[in-house]
Amino acid sequence: MIGATTVSDIAFALVYHRWLLSATPFCMTPSVSAIPELITSAANAEVKRLRSLHERKYRRQTGLFLAEGTRICTEATALGWEMHRLAFLAGRQNNISIRPLLDALSYVGGRPLPMTEALLKRISRKDNPQMVVGAFAQRYIGLSDINPDQSDIWVALDRVRDPGNLGTIMRTIDATGGRGLILIDDCTDPYSVEAVRASMGAVFNVAIASCSQPEFLAFASKWPGRLHGTALLASTDYRAVAYDGPLIVLMGNEQAGLPNSLMQACTQLIRMPMRGRSDSLNLAVATGLALYEAIRTRD
Amino acid sequence: MIGATTVSDIAFALVYHRWLLSATPFCMTPSVSAIPELITSAANAEVKRLRSLHERKYRRQTGLFLAEGTRICTEATALGWEMHRLAFLAGRQNNISIRPLLDALSYVGGRPLPMTEALLKRISRKDNPQMVVGAFAQRYIGLSDINPDQSDIWVALDRVRDPGNLGTIMRTIDATGGRGLILIDDCTDPYSVEAVRASMGAVFNVAIASCSQPEFLAFASKWPGRLHGTALLASTDYRAVAYDGPLIVLMGNEQAGLPNSLMQACTQLIRMPMRGRSDSLNLAVATGLALYEAIRTRD
Repeated sequence: MIGATTVSDIAFALVYHRWLLSATPFCMTPSVSAIPELITSAANAEVKRLRSLHERKYRRQTGLFLAEGTRICTEATALGWEMHRLAFLAGRQNNISIRPLLDALSYVGGRPLPMTEALLKRISRKDNPQMVVGAFAQRYIGLSDINPDQSDIWVALDRVRDPGNLGTIMRTIDATGGRGLILIDDCTDPYSVEAVRASMGAVFNVAIASCSQPEFLAFASKWPGRLHGTALLASTDYRAVAYDGPLIVLMGNEQAGLPNSLMQACTQLIRMPMRGRSDSLNLAVATGLALYEAIRTRD
Repeated sequence: MIGATTVSDIAFALVYHRWLLSATPFCMTPSVSAIPELITSAANAEVKRLRSLHERKYRRQTGLFLAEGTRICTEATALGWEMHRLAFLAGRQNNISIRPLLDALSYVGGRPLPMTEALLKRISRKDNPQMVVGAFAQRYIGLSDINPDQSDIWVALDRVRDPGNLGTIMRTIDATGGRGLILIDDCTDPYSVEAVRASMGAVFNVAIASCSQPEFLAFASKWPGRLHGTALLASTDYRAVAYDGPLIVLMGNEQAGLPNSLMQACTQLIRMPMRGRSDSLNLAVATGLALYEAIRTRD
């Protein structure tokens, strides 16, 4: 996942590693009364590091990402995701939604960061920030970790560009009880703030794998079930095919669609009927139609 | 459509009116060789006015909006939309895609604006701008213009906030052969650059009406067909209802969903099955599912 490494990258990684370690004492002192001092300066190192997580480079180096809001952070910790930092509105440590988050944070040795609303705005880059922003450890599975059972549904995306589309697709995978997402080649980051927001918390409930096209092709050749790809010129209507057994729905890039190499790996190419002047659907809408078609025949 | 009017608004409108009239001579001289001088300055009045169309206030005052790209601008003129301005990359006036656009422009008295790539970037606010940006006259129909026949499908949106969702929904309405869109109360602007982009040209192929909730309720009370609204707690699966005859699919705001007043106007409330932790779908995905379900039973 990590691109070309530079000296400054290594320096950052070392500093960051120390930053993570510096939180360890909280693990030793699970007393939740240990709330550090109010942070009021944008020059504060913790604030700067959280803000850096808007950039893919720093998300890669640290392995962390931001999630906003008490509901989503609470669900994430309930699902066992490691929260390393929790920025929250100063004075709210006894809020009924925030208290359990601070407990969860203390349990894994994370660091609570009480701050002003102005700083929460800077971290979230929103005018109306949520009361809390958590920094969580990213998770990727390997393709070899995928051992499908009969009811498994996965979505594979080839070079998806738009973080809103990617987040929306995670939300729909979760809604249809799908297992997860396989990102092929250079995709937009599923852990970007925009993708996480669009996922509405689903990022914490879908498994994510990332691979090259050759790796995917090798994986697909051993896949025990169906692999349905969408293609504008496919001859088979998506409502006319079978979806039973382990299923991968494979979708191409927003502009270019699927390349021939991936189309050839499919057990079936499908299309959605188009009745107007538009010649294609939004990627997230098309994925939604395929996933809901898959569960229709599994009900 | 126009909010509180101020003196500066009126001054702008007057100047703008003169701007529009100033293009009239092109109507008299349909010779397409009459390309004005290259525009190189961001301070140029035409450039400033086109850039102002990123703001809703100026779109309202002028009644214009921006559309990018030769394919979409060509389709728009073919469908009879009035193009008032065409900004294009200087020197490309004889390009096979741009020549017909300049002819269409000249036919309605619009003004061609050859300019540098740097200025096209400023107008589109994109690093890789399209070769052309057109300014078109917005169109709104009234609810009284809607005389549904048996096969008509409309989508009504209550206070939709996200321009990407709105554009994607226009794209899906077009793809399913729907007639158009009814925007209830304060919705995001269907003619914003973001919505037009997400529509992928469909904005030129769907009718758009805008109304208050009381106006919609009065209209709905006389609607001769079905009015299906989506609601999280609805008891009827969207796959179990009828969609024949004139149909309106009614969708609520992204955060709040439909208010009771609108739900009560529905002939049927429907829901999509949710199998994961997510309790709802993205608005554009849910609309897509309802529209494709509607055409499934009409095939």
